Amino acid sequence: MTKTNQSKLKIIPLGGLEQIGMNITVFEYEDSIIVVDCGLSFPADDMLGIDLVIPDITYLKNNIDKVKGFIITHGHEDHIGALPYVLKEINIPIYATKLTIGIIDNKLKEHGLIRGTKRKVVRHGQSINLGCFRIEFIKTNHSIADASALAIYSPAGIVVHTGDFKVDYTPLFGDAIDLQRFGEIGKKGVLALMCDSTNAIRAGFTMSERTVAKTFDNLFEEHKNRRIFVATFASNVDRVQQIINTAYKFGRKVVVEGRSMVNIISIASELGYVSIPDKTLIEIEQLKNYPDEQTVIITTGSQGESMAALSRMASGVHKKITINPNDTIIFSSTPIPGNEKAVSKIVNELSRKGADVIYQDAHVSGHACQEEIKLIYSLVHPKYAIPVHGEFRHLKAQGKLAVDLGIPKDNIFILTSGDVLEMDQESAKVVDKVPAGAVFVDGLGVGDVGNIVLRDRQHLAEDGIIIVVMTLEKAFNQLIAGPDIVSRGFVYVRESEMLMEEARRVVEDALMECLDKKISDWGKIKNSIRESLSSYIWKKTKRNPMILPIIMEI
Amino acid sequence: MTKTNQSKLKIIPLGGLEQIGMNITVFEYEDSIIVVDCGLSFPADDMLGIDLVIPDITYLKNNIDKVKGFIITHGHEDHIGALPYVLKEINIPIYATKLTIGIIDNKLKEHGLIRGTKRKVVRHGQSINLGCFRIEFIKTNHSIADASALAIYSPAGIVVHTGDFKVDYTPLFGDAIDLQRFGEIGKKGVLALMCDSTNAIRAGFTMSERTVAKTFDNLFEEHKNRRIFVATFASNVDRVQQIINTAYKFGRKVVVEGRSMVNIISIASELGYVSIPDKTLIEIEQLKNYPDEQTVIITTGSQGESMAALSRMASGVHKKITINPNDTIIFSSTPIPGNEKAVSKIVNELSRKGADVIYQDAHVSGHACQEEIKLIYSLVHPKYAIPVHGEFRHLKAQGKLAVDLGIPKDNIFILTSGDVLEMDQESAKVVDKVPAGAVFVDGLGVGDVGNIVLRDRQHLAEDGIIIVVMTLEKAFNQLIAGPDIVSRGFVYVRESEMLMEEARRVVEDALMECLDKKISDWGKIKNSIRESLSSYIWKKTKRNPMILPIIMEI
Repeated sequence: MTKTNQSKLKIIPLGGLEQIGMNITVFEYEDSIIVVDCGLSFPADDMLGIDLVIPDITYLKNNIDKVKGFIITHGHEDHIGALPYVLKEINIPIYATKLTIGIIDNKLKEHGLIRGTKRKVVRHGQSINLGCFRIEFIKTNHSIADASALAIYSPAGIVVHTGDFKVDYTPLFGDAIDLQRFGEIGKKGVLALMCDSTNAIRAGFTMSERTVAKTFDNLFEEHKNRRIFVATFASNVDRVQQIINTAYKFGRKVVVEGRSMVNIISIASELGYVSIPDKTLIEIEQLKNYPDEQTVIITTGSQGESMAALSRMASGVHKKITINPNDTIIFSSTPIPGNEKAVSKIVNELSRKGADVIYQDAHVSGHACQEEIKLIYSLVHPKYAIPVHGEFRHLKAQGKLAVDLGIPKDNIFILTSGDVLEMDQESAKVVDKVPAGAVFVDGLGVGDVGNIVLRDRQHLAEDGIIIVVMTLEKAFNQLIAGPDIVSRGFVYVRESEMLMEEARRVVEDALMECLDKKISDWGKIKNSIRESLSSYIWKKTKRNPMILPIIMEI
Repeated sequence: MTKTNQSKLKIIPLGGLEQIGMNITVFEYEDSIIVVDCGLSFPADDMLGIDLVIPDITYLKNNIDKVKGFIITHGHEDHIGALPYVLKEINIPIYATKLTIGIIDNKLKEHGLIRGTKRKVVRHGQSINLGCFRIEFIKTNHSIADASALAIYSPAGIVVHTGDFKVDYTPLFGDAIDLQRFGEIGKKGVLALMCDSTNAIRAGFTMSERTVAKTFDNLFEEHKNRRIFVATFASNVDRVQQIINTAYKFGRKVVVEGRSMVNIISIASELGYVSIPDKTLIEIEQLKNYPDEQTVIITTGSQGESMAALSRMASGVHKKITINPNDTIIFSSTPIPGNEKAVSKIVNELSRKGADVIYQDAHVSGHACQEEIKLIYSLVHPKYAIPVHGEFRHLKAQGKLAVDLGIPKDNIFILTSGDVLEMDQESAKVVDKVPAGAVFVDGLGVGDVGNIVLRDRQHLAEDGIIIVVMTLEKAFNQLIAGPDIVSRGFVYVRESEMLMEEARRVVEDALMECLDKKISDWGKIKNSIRESLSSYIWKKTKRNPMILPIIMEI
């Protein structure tokens, strides 16, 4: 790190843009490092078989003596999901608000990490000191309760990080975002603002969570005589609260279904973030004791996740609930980009079972639109702008807003994973690049599936595999058994017998030619077989299966 | 077909709902069959390696003596794309309007089928007689020129099929939809209406194609000093015409890029469906002779298709065009469901190259919204309603509109592939199911990849494959060579040497136990190896690769 300057503040995203969702940002000043968030992302379509993607924390491991702690802005997976994996490698304390710590604790318990990890609850308005940093937690609103923005005080200046946020003047639970404090800190002079860009391409102002209540009331009134399902995000505690409120108003009992939702609601209820009237919640087994019009099922699966409760109901494999024509299913969500098809599939399946499916208007976003972003910029009035959270086009859209608000173009930074942005009151510049990026989790394996394995999976998925096996006697260069051909995922063999038979002959010819020429380098023999067979198969089928010659020697 | 009644009209979708896009519908009365459209669909996400999906035409082959011809409503792939494959199996004449035949001809030429196939151009307002059917072509509007609705006159009554349509009172080219004729036929009494449902969940009225011109004018004005790209559907001839008009107005030269667009524009231009001012079109090689502000590139790839021109430009591998910060790229399209992520990817890539990307507001749909659907129902006033073209939820939404318009619920039919709907003036009922559905095209193979192969590809894609090979001597039940283990797409072997070594030992133990027990049934030996290895791998990795034991005998 000879290029960097000790007496400047360094901001280094280890995830972010390259891997949307993997939110983890390093703040470094001299011998102090703090890390904001530690999220995971879900695999892109071409990451076949991968379960999760977590950040590469080589930089933290290499600087472990400096690392003081994780500051977590809120309890969504894209901000906390990688903690269990990362904590196995580096054990450092975690600081967050009460509900956020509650959700993290639940995760750490599942991974058997709760004993070894130091966690500390911080209240909004409170500050903590870590090395040469002071970090103040500021109340915001978001689609999960207890979300925070951060004011990070460093010797080089103050950085304000909004976390994920919206401005809700009339939140369902707790206070509105602490706009006064944003203004007060702004008055002191802010070096940099890192602001949520998710909705930066949307004009206007995100509606209050409270407006959804009215929609629920109307829908429950309209569907009075029916059984009602509401699908939403497991972690949207306020949404669940509103559904429960409406259910109670209409005299309906409530079932909460789906493991993650049951978990989070039980944590939220324990910690006082959701209040459920007595005798409102019932177990799923009790459903049969109530007529349709007296029940509501709140369920996971609003994103079309194939293993979630709603998906199992839609495809008719849910053990305890069967969808019927007297059911109304409300999606209290919008599809996250990439999930549109999966959601449509479930809507169609539910419709075909005769259910009435409502997938519009029962949702508001948890992220700030353009007018809210402008509001925060105007209160904080930073010298530098570092748009965060979103695709490149979203970050760029926020950059445009910042320019409109008078921030010079050169003071706006769109960072990619591993960029080292160095700044003080005089200047800011990307000066270096450190290791960063994606580590794949597949089953129990962390990092043992890399790009070569993925490329192979892609190849296998595309056209399957043809395996050619033969036994050779090394000493005499003689064929003892085979060549045999076995294929998987290529063609339905019984209908393509001639093709496979001819393929065997092609292999045999290639092999015999090698043996006749006394070629004893098996690599060469394999190559020759691979090339002959591959060109034959391409000519006959215009397909390109993986071809894998295996030579056994005796 | 003992269940069916000869003197009733039968309507049988061979594709449709199960395979959105694969539009092909059989109309049968006594010894006459006509087929409306012959589309293909693109593979769903789980159809790994599949290029195209075409309809199963077993029913047509079994009734080939009755089949009089294909009636094609318009030239989109989901209505004509399967013709080359189907015509290789059944050679019957094709009837369509001029541009539609032009596009089909181009396709047949590519497949070497043009000589053997009878094609006949039909004008709007004209009728043709096929067996006991008379088919009248009615002018409509859509996102491709020369689209038709059909009035199908049968002894059982008249069926009106809208094809894909919208109501455009001020179309860019040619006449507006012939609403008078819809009304006139409606007055005669219509047995059934088959109406486009694509936008049946959208309120209101689809805007006129002409409104897009205004948007282009504004955008060209705003981006006066920049090079402009417009990405749109290759077949949207009117859209291309409008872009050319605006380009001409602003004194810009036009390059058309992307094979399918070049093809269709040349056909449309030859047939007089597009008119290009002299010296406006230039070759892509000439681009360098003009300054940025005097050129427009109209390109394919607006859906994020990975092989299309725009995608190649975005990823920097296009041979003749390099994106730079002086480029403005306008998406004149909206993503088709399922393509959202691919489109976002390209928008982000283009943005990162510094281009200004505009992906809102420069498009109107080609399909009728709710008010247009209601208009058609009100003019045609059918006895039965058969919503077509769309997902189940769209068909159901149209069904609801039909109910609002006074059609009894029992007279509305949502058909699935192979359903035989039999009807006359007295009644209508699904009476039978015939073979129908999807045939997979992979490379040159049509139908040789079925569900078993796809399941294998899915399995391979998920966790890869482990191959276990060994050579046994049959006579003495003795191991001659191996067992060797080879894996692909499972783990990165160099980093998992111990795992693979231990796996080999597990296999060896299982094999030796079999040989010791004198088991000579190789199926049993393979099963024993598969089970031991599979449970070992699951225990160690929580993964489930395909395990393929191969025994060679000498």
